[in-house]
Amino acid sequence: MRFSRILVEGRPAYAEIDGKIAHILEGDPLAGPAKRTNSAVEVTKAVFLPPVIPGVFYAVGFNYPAHVKHHHATMPDRPEIGYRANNALTGHHTPIIRPAGVEGRFEAEGEVVAVIGRRLRRASRAEAQESIFGWTIGNDVSAREWQHADRTFWRSKNSDTFKPMGPWIETDVDPLAQTTTVRIDGDVRATFATGDMIFDPFDYIVETSRYITLHPGDVLWMGADSTVQLEPGTVVEIEISGIGTLSNPVLSERHP
Amino acid sequence: MRFSRILVEGRPAYAEIDGKIAHILEGDPLAGPAKRTNSAVEVTKAVFLPPVIPGVFYAVGFNYPAHVKHHHATMPDRPEIGYRANNALTGHHTPIIRPAGVEGRFEAEGEVVAVIGRRLRRASRAEAQESIFGWTIGNDVSAREWQHADRTFWRSKNSDTFKPMGPWIETDVDPLAQTTTVRIDGDVRATFATGDMIFDPFDYIVETSRYITLHPGDVLWMGADSTVQLEPGTVVEIEISGIGTLSNPVLSERHP
Repeated sequence: MRFSRILVEGRPAYAEIDGKIAHILEGDPLAGPAKRTNSAVEVTKAVFLPPVIPGVFYAVGFNYPAHVKHHHATMPDRPEIGYRANNALTGHHTPIIRPAGVEGRFEAEGEVVAVIGRRLRRASRAEAQESIFGWTIGNDVSAREWQHADRTFWRSKNSDTFKPMGPWIETDVDPLAQTTTVRIDGDVRATFATGDMIFDPFDYIVETSRYITLHPGDVLWMGADSTVQLEPGTVVEIEISGIGTLSNPVLSERHP
Repeated sequence: MRFSRILVEGRPAYAEIDGKIAHILEGDPLAGPAKRTNSAVEVTKAVFLPPVIPGVFYAVGFNYPAHVKHHHATMPDRPEIGYRANNALTGHHTPIIRPAGVEGRFEAEGEVVAVIGRRLRRASRAEAQESIFGWTIGNDVSAREWQHADRTFWRSKNSDTFKPMGPWIETDVDPLAQTTTVRIDGDVRATFATGDMIFDPFDYIVETSRYITLHPGDVLWMGADSTVQLEPGTVVEIEISGIGTLSNPVLSERHP
């Protein structure tokens, strides 16, 4: 099943995507069974929100060998999780805004995102696998000059609109057997096998949950193999086979 | 006014603290006016929760000259915000659990916490001042050996129970004219003027909001002048004059 969060009469609502139709749900499928209402909208007319606002927004840094080598970084020897911030989340089709002052490398990364479905602590690998509600797509946008100039990732990775997520959560897919494709205005700029991860989502959940309780709605962004430069005036698409396509126009900030 | 979040019949509810009485409120004072119900409990019998669960949990690293010098670190030249994670939050009187495997420095830091009351972006200093809902107290617990061994702050600062916050949000206090006192089993181990900050909360809000939208309920933990070692079997208290006292027993994890 595919679950989106969309705007219905100005308010967020969950919807079940069935082909071209988004059936509006009553309730939050992450909190328990959510029933279809009598309302539906065409998917092409839906206004997409991030499919979940996490309690904690986890993200992996270096997690693909090609990415580590490209940055001449040390290969990670254990699955150590990092963080991003909710203000930066934005939905499918909404613009990524390149802030005034960002020059040089302004890059997209197409990532598999795990959405946690239950509370867990000290999880076994089997429990980690059972804890997943579903999988969505994230675009981990970074302003590299800020990343190098700043003490933390605050504005380089967490400026408003830097974290598109969606379009929906797919509950029935093997996230490690897919292909990620990044396109700019329809041209393929990167493509890689999702399964090339150094540590997979379940490795991260097992290790993180040794110290940390994970909760329903928490998300883990799983890293990317390669980065793609973004330019205002273009549209960036992240397609992950078996999940869908996350598409966002790139704009330049109007108010310097 | 003082607003707490407490457990009422097993569910979180806001309460207005008036001397020894916690008047249960209907609604969330951070979302709009919240009215007193006919229910009340004695403050000494209340079960305190973190007074807010933030959408984004902001925290400042080095923000007091003595702390920077103690760590032989470079004095920050601009207010760059960092992050902590919601799983680590815990309330007044609940235990801080020292995880199995933590040895050496396991430290408390008593911090002023700003609670944001309105949405803001590109705030002036006056707007930053007006955006504050109130002030509470945070204890930024850190396991220093993990902090040095790990790539991120994940378990060193964000293990479960490492972020006590409370007991309440005080809406009428000048946070920069107070004294922070850290006690272990009643003995004073640190005391400093809150106003000795390198950058104050409004400096952080102005700079952060150049790139980032702040939302009601977001919190900013403002850093500490000094650290205090924690030992299982003791009680750590952070008192900030004009706000209150946050008290937590320290325990050792039972399940290694």
